[in-house]
Amino acid sequence: MLLDHVIFSQQFTVPILMELFNRTDQMRKIVKRGGTLDYQKKIMATLFYAPSTRTRFSFEAAMFRLGGNVLSTEQAKMFSSEIKGEMLEDTIRIISNYCDIIVIRHHEEGGAKRAAEVSSVPIINAGDGSGGQHPTQALLDLYTIYNECKTLDGLSVAIIGALDKGRTARSLAYLLSKFERTKIYFIAPEEMQIKQDILDHLDEKGISYELSSTTDKIINKVDVVYQTRIDKDRLKGKEMDLSVYNIDQEVLKKMKKNSIILHPLPRSVEISHDVDTDKRAAYFRQSENGLYVRMALISFLLDKNSQ
Amino acid sequence: MLLDHVIFSQQFTVPILMELFNRTDQMRKIVKRGGTLDYQKKIMATLFYAPSTRTRFSFEAAMFRLGGNVLSTEQAKMFSSEIKGEMLEDTIRIISNYCDIIVIRHHEEGGAKRAAEVSSVPIINAGDGSGGQHPTQALLDLYTIYNECKTLDGLSVAIIGALDKGRTARSLAYLLSKFERTKIYFIAPEEMQIKQDILDHLDEKGISYELSSTTDKIINKVDVVYQTRIDKDRLKGKEMDLSVYNIDQEVLKKMKKNSIILHPLPRSVEISHDVDTDKRAAYFRQSENGLYVRMALISFLLDKNSQ
Amino acid sequence: MLLDHVIFSQQFTVPILMELFNRTDQMRKIVKRGGTLDYQKKIMATLFYAPSTRTRFSFEAAMFRLGGNVLSTEQAKMFSSEIKGEMLEDTIRIISNYCDIIVIRHHEEGGAKRAAEVSSVPIINAGDGSGGQHPTQALLDLYTIYNECKTLDGLSVAIIGALDKGRTARSLAYLLSKFERTKIYFIAPEEMQIKQDILDHLDEKGISYELSSTTDKIINKVDVVYQTRIDKDRLKGKEMDLSVYNIDQEVLKKMKKNSIILHPLPRSVEISHDVDTDKRAAYFRQSENGLYVRMALISFLLDKNSQ
Repeated sequence: MLLDHVIFSQQFTVPILMELFNRTDQMRKIVKRGGTLDYQKKIMATLFYAPSTRTRFSFEAAMFRLGGNVLSTEQAKMFSSEIKGEMLEDTIRIISNYCDIIVIRHHEEGGAKRAAEVSSVPIINAGDGSGGQHPTQALLDLYTIYNECKTLDGLSVAIIGALDKGRTARSLAYLLSKFERTKIYFIAPEEMQIKQDILDHLDEKGISYELSSTTDKIINKVDVVYQTRIDKDRLKGKEMDLSVYNIDQEVLKKMKKNSIILHPLPRSVEISHDVDTDKRAAYFRQSENGLYVRMALISFLLDKNSQ
Repeated sequence: MLLDHVIFSQQFTVPILMELFNRTDQMRKIVKRGGTLDYQKKIMATLFYAPSTRTRFSFEAAMFRLGGNVLSTEQAKMFSSEIKGEMLEDTIRIISNYCDIIVIRHHEEGGAKRAAEVSSVPIINAGDGSGGQHPTQALLDLYTIYNECKTLDGLSVAIIGALDKGRTARSLAYLLSKFERTKIYFIAPEEMQIKQDILDHLDEKGISYELSSTTDKIINKVDVVYQTRIDKDRLKGKEMDLSVYNIDQEVLKKMKKNSIILHPLPRSVEISHDVDTDKRAAYFRQSENGLYVRMALISFLLDKNSQ
Repeated sequence: MLLDHVIFSQQFTVPILMELFNRTDQMRKIVKRGGTLDYQKKIMATLFYAPSTRTRFSFEAAMFRLGGNVLSTEQAKMFSSEIKGEMLEDTIRIISNYCDIIVIRHHEEGGAKRAAEVSSVPIINAGDGSGGQHPTQALLDLYTIYNECKTLDGLSVAIIGALDKGRTARSLAYLLSKFERTKIYFIAPEEMQIKQDILDHLDEKGISYELSSTTDKIINKVDVVYQTRIDKDRLKGKEMDLSVYNIDQEVLKKMKKNSIILHPLPRSVEISHDVDTDKRAAYFRQSENGLYVRMALISFLLDKNSQ
């Protein structure tokens, strides 16, 4: 697939990843020195059927920094309830006449793919359903690892949280599997472990991994801790102490000096606030990278489409 | 009326229609070749008391393609519930200080007219109440007929659907009545036929029309089929088969080779999806025309206002 | 405090007020002659946890007139309900990476202050909680008094309404206290009078004031009537005639010829509509001033931040 649309994180090949990461570095430099980019006539539509101010702002700020304009919805579901059935497809056919690129967050798994099938402009999936994907999050996660660790070769990565429903954890695992010497530790309560389809994929790719319900044995040897949120509603009525997964000063002491902590944010209690000032806490740098990665991706798709 | 505000489709005279359609052709050419327009300092406000992403995006994309900026509301009713009474008038007085043109969709019939009475900048009605008007939709409908058929003289037009509450059908009938050799067929279940006020207007203008509850006798001789949606909620508990109004491959076979099918969209089941690829299916071209027609109308009003 | 963030009206010193008012005059001139300003690369985020189309549009129009772009939320609370606790701080840390200035309206008192404590870009408080502040409203109120009366020295000001919960009344009282020869009359039903903290502040500053439940004795001698809204819900089940506070033709007759009437708008019944055409009715000029004052304030903070 030539990356006309960005729907799944699996789509990114290593050469495309490297091209996007180089472009991301350039975007960062241009923004930092207050430079301008030449996408003045371009229009992006952000079609968010489920609200997410942070993700939407990240895409829209990227488009503004590129010089373009934005058609925006905060909660598009309000208008889509009118008609059942083929609504989404007709909406995309119409809206793709009004803009040059569409960013869609759909409440149903597969929504972005359905949009891509009828759109006349590039579609970027900004999250589809709770079990779906969020490929630009995975892209900025991987870029941050690359930017902080200066390599993607031979890294040990601990992915922690409610991994069975973790959209970002799943998307990142797909991307990490592109780098054959990666070692992944999936850390979760047994009933929330990563699903078998991901493990099958890693097996197929020959990626080494381990499953565990505690961080005890691995926290001192990983290069990257990818912490995610555990929805407290899922713990109701269960005897489970999730604080064993939290990252605090005690955990920090055990971690390698040049390791990093990532989190897709927003966080709840799973990272103590006094961790923020540690230089290994990379999650706010990670969210800032979202801007540059999205600038790179949007400009890449627009350039490709105007050739 | 000199078209300071666009509230009713009746306002458009034939010379103004022709001026707007010429301007629309120019706008299409400029957009297609990636040209720029000179409305950089202009601000449009889209004040939507009832959400409609497609219509709003069409106006906002038009403003961006002209070079301007947009103050946008997705659901303005949220804030207007605070005070009853003269709220709308005061809101318009205030907001017209902040922008150069206002596009309003109001949930009450007459809302746009009330806005125009106090506004210091041009008002465009983007739909007011279910029984009101939507003049820019009628404008793009008529432009599409003109653009596809290359004439507005002597056309036979079938308007199909729940016409008693059809805002777009009513507005289009008003515009078609400007062209004296037009013949209109209103096709609807008897209890949903077009209302008498429209027929009185056509009588006054000397426009020929017929009412029917089936398309059988006319589908093979019309130049334009204007299909609209029938709200299924209105059929509850009734013994009525609406599929007789649907357009499918069987209906296509009977239609003239150079006829066209229009629909204001979104559609439900009333046009089969396999019709989309027929060259007579003009409804997606029609929605694209919405961009150019609105660019023409907005620029026309801004030019007029800055003289 | 050097005005990195604008949270309370007390922050404005007289020299800063004068600098902002001069800048406001310039902004008005530039807008009136269709001139341009040089903030093309700047991005403002309007983070409205409570909707207010007028206030939001005023800020966004100001940013567009300056040449910049806007990340906008109509109702940000929708997305913030996900997690309790430190949500706001993390959101601001993230969003301040995506823009150059943040305008926040938070539903809780103290929200803007919390945002300022973690933001990497200037924060402007656009209202925090019902008992909080709205400093830019106070700024435009004071500017309007200055612009209309041509002085801020020795003015008599009547502030009328449900003053105990009047955010704008409280903020204006703080600003007026910067001018020592001011005389303030607080006119309200006894149980809705201005709170003691404001009176203590005025005592400390040596500002002269009087409390009253009628306008009878003072309406003929004040220079400024600052009328505010009385929420009718608060009167339920009470024997109270609020019409004594309304401004109508009878009240106008008693007022000084060169006095002015202000209102933060939207109004309910407390100013009769036939007052609008009287030249002393300054409330629509006041709302227009909101645009220029906000242009001045935003550009002031952006200039300061880029030094």
